[in-house]
Amino acid sequence: MRCAGLAFVLLSACGGATAPAARPPAADEPTWAQAVRDAQARAQTTAQTYDHVEGLTDAAGPRLAGSPGDPLAVAWALAHMRDIGLANVHAEPVTVHVWQRGEERVDMITPVPHQLAATALGGSVGTPEGGIEADLVRVTSLDELRALPADQAAGHIVFVDQRMERARDGSTYGTGVRVRILAASIAAERGALAVLIRSVGTDATRFAHTGVLRYDEAQPRIPAASVSNADADVIARTLAHGTTVRVRVSLGCHEAPDAQSANVIGEVVGSDHASEVVLLGAHLDSWDLGRGAVDDGAGVAIVLEAARQIATSPTPPRRTVRVVLFANEENGGAGADAYAAAHAAELAEHVLAMEADFGDGRAWALRSPSRSDAWARIAALLEPLDVVWDEGEPHGGADLEAMHDTGGVPPADIEQDGSRYFDLHHTANDVLTEIDRESLDHAMRAVLTVAYAAALDTDGIRREPWTPTEESP
Amino acid sequence: MRCAGLAFVLLSACGGATAPAARPPAADEPTWAQAVRDAQARAQTTAQTYDHVEGLTDAAGPRLAGSPGDPLAVAWALAHMRDIGLANVHAEPVTVHVWQRGEERVDMITPVPHQLAATALGGSVGTPEGGIEADLVRVTSLDELRALPADQAAGHIVFVDQRMERARDGSTYGTGVRVRILAASIAAERGALAVLIRSVGTDATRFAHTGVLRYDEAQPRIPAASVSNADADVIARTLAHGTTVRVRVSLGCHEAPDAQSANVIGEVVGSDHASEVVLLGAHLDSWDLGRGAVDDGAGVAIVLEAARQIATSPTPPRRTVRVVLFANEENGGAGADAYAAAHAAELAEHVLAMEADFGDGRAWALRSPSRSDAWARIAALLEPLDVVWDEGEPHGGADLEAMHDTGGVPPADIEQDGSRYFDLHHTANDVLTEIDRESLDHAMRAVLTVAYAAALDTDGIRREPWTPTEESP
Repeated sequence: MRCAGLAFVLLSACGGATAPAARPPAADEPTWAQAVRDAQARAQTTAQTYDHVEGLTDAAGPRLAGSPGDPLAVAWALAHMRDIGLANVHAEPVTVHVWQRGEERVDMITPVPHQLAATALGGSVGTPEGGIEADLVRVTSLDELRALPADQAAGHIVFVDQRMERARDGSTYGTGVRVRILAASIAAERGALAVLIRSVGTDATRFAHTGVLRYDEAQPRIPAASVSNADADVIARTLAHGTTVRVRVSLGCHEAPDAQSANVIGEVVGSDHASEVVLLGAHLDSWDLGRGAVDDGAGVAIVLEAARQIATSPTPPRRTVRVVLFANEENGGAGADAYAAAHAAELAEHVLAMEADFGDGRAWALRSPSRSDAWARIAALLEPLDVVWDEGEPHGGADLEAMHDTGGVPPADIEQDGSRYFDLHHTANDVLTEIDRESLDHAMRAVLTVAYAAALDTDGIRREPWTPTEESP
Repeated sequence: MRCAGLAFVLLSACGGATAPAARPPAADEPTWAQAVRDAQARAQTTAQTYDHVEGLTDAAGPRLAGSPGDPLAVAWALAHMRDIGLANVHAEPVTVHVWQRGEERVDMITPVPHQLAATALGGSVGTPEGGIEADLVRVTSLDELRALPADQAAGHIVFVDQRMERARDGSTYGTGVRVRILAASIAAERGALAVLIRSVGTDATRFAHTGVLRYDEAQPRIPAASVSNADADVIARTLAHGTTVRVRVSLGCHEAPDAQSANVIGEVVGSDHASEVVLLGAHLDSWDLGRGAVDDGAGVAIVLEAARQIATSPTPPRRTVRVVLFANEENGGAGADAYAAAHAAELAEHVLAMEADFGDGRAWALRSPSRSDAWARIAALLEPLDVVWDEGEPHGGADLEAMHDTGGVPPADIEQDGSRYFDLHHTANDVLTEIDRESLDHAMRAVLTVAYAAALDTDGIRREPWTPTEESP
């Protein structure tokens, strides 16, 4: 999961109110609903969700756009979609910008020599040969950073020490990610040599969290890295004692020539409304430190398995269920843009789009693009999974933005429990051993329910005109 | 915690049976017991155990023998012992061998390029410039390694994939650590270029566990590193699919000239049996990756706080309680040897020695050097803490070995819950954020109880002739 721009950050950061769904009378239940219930039951014993995560993460490893793992992931996805019985499996080309981490290290020099657990933010420029060595000056927010006297920033490395709190819905990420995206250029404007931020993550360990930054064209580009929460605590305590903290930041990161990647697409073709699409999206790329198991191997697995369950159901979907594994979600969004452009002519027949990009957490809510009776029926089908019908607006996710913006494609969200997600997000520890099979399967069953129902209920679920009510700033 | 030699490994790996202590009749309770109960109660509200860990880890950071943190730790300990009211605070010189990690990285080259979470074993030689690149050959035990055909080992890097299971008493460490200590020379004898071992640790994360190895003089010295459990899983799965795994190991580690370190000693002087010593030991050094919070900041804090509680009790101890913070426990044991040599003449008056080197886990058992009535009384004082009197033999710990061997000093053990200890042990994540204040304080109160009682009960607790009944091989 990335935040390419603040618009998405602020949209997705909203919590939204929760209201239990009212169960409709059983007599109302349409004929197709039994097919969905049967699929839910079958999925409980036949799910291969975890196996998909294992397959992808073992076959491709880290797969940042343009890295050696990127084509390995594309090759795996093409072969695997065919293996699990999807139709029309193909890759669509995506040109991606390439950023490479290179060698990096951040050392505390005084008062105690120690190599910190730290990592460059995606898109950061590197440091000169020999690194940048300077004393730290600490602020706790972007507002404090903006108010930092230039003589305190000049010649220093700024340390932005804003902590991210744990939240089931990930609503604390928005505030955190603003620091990651904006701190470098604000610090540059104040005259700083480089910036370190406290990791945007909820763990207290020595895994640093990477993720993209965005440089303001009007400011010099200074190197930016995040330090683990455990190291940030040490720095904060040391400074609180009045002790100077001197660090050396050596980052070998740099841009490289553009590369070719691909969105990988497969379908369960609809029986009598095949031109209408229910899209299930996740992203195939990952950050480079770990192996992208929760971000977004889990999402890839959820949408693949939901599609596989639909493909093997005795009742075929009436609409086409299309799985799109997007390229380059983490540091560019070129896959999402390429899909929206390549499929512009058919976006009007995209009835619904769902994105799985929030890890392996259990599903707890549905957010739907309308409160229609048809959505009430789908919500009722989620009740056995203890998934409530939340009144909050769906936000879709980064890879659906372009098709919302250019084609008005409405999203529906299965909200997952993200309490642990930001312990692992964008760290070296985002690996298979952290995946919880049970909650991953649960989230898959919720996505399966919504997607299959939306692909069967051609009378009830229609393509609703959809514009987010929340404005981006 | 280290294991300098197999003798200690095998001694300490034994589980031992557990038997609840019989509470003696209250009428038997000697007069000094109330002072111990009062100290226990006072410690419950006044303990500064956690603060000592914070102080040491922030002031000295990583403090491997001969590293920059080593003298910082000695300086902190001297000042801090004085601050908390210990007497006769001084440093005793210890010459230490020095090993430096340098730059290191281990990369999976095929089938998936990925920098593995890996770290050199302490004492390993480095690799030639450019590293050693070769295919892996996997064995799951030292026996398999010994039986590996030379033509399979030659030209390969051996991967010893033996897993450590979780255990409260740490009894699984012995088997694990044998691999760490012995694998390199056995692999060298088979003709391997280098050796990787699965981390000797119980976590499933991407923190690699370091720790010492021992080279057999008869074999060539080959580089040795451990990989994180998560990475070991990936390697094992990949090989199980019949896929070749090629890695490049680049280790910059090397020996450096000997350095001066010190044991740091402070006392609570006994009132009328001052020449008799109850020794509380822990080690001041740590591995270099983390900040030695559980290994052995926790132990340092336990013995310092127990001594501070005794020093501030209204009833002074009759025997001297001596805190010894040993140098160089992790990779040499020179501190323990230096203490035994420097104090050889007074070891006969060391009534008892205890060592705290098992992290921040809650205390669960006492193991005493005899089953005398006096020890039964001390065991009874531990009952309110839910600490049982275990029939197993005390093993003391690595820093007490030399004084047992040369002076027959009997140990007593407070056994701590080590269920989580080997998640953190010798990793970069051995830092303050992982310390549990409550269980740390509990262990401290148990140590306080035994040490204070042994220093008060000059009639009951005597220096018992002590020889371990378990033979080293």
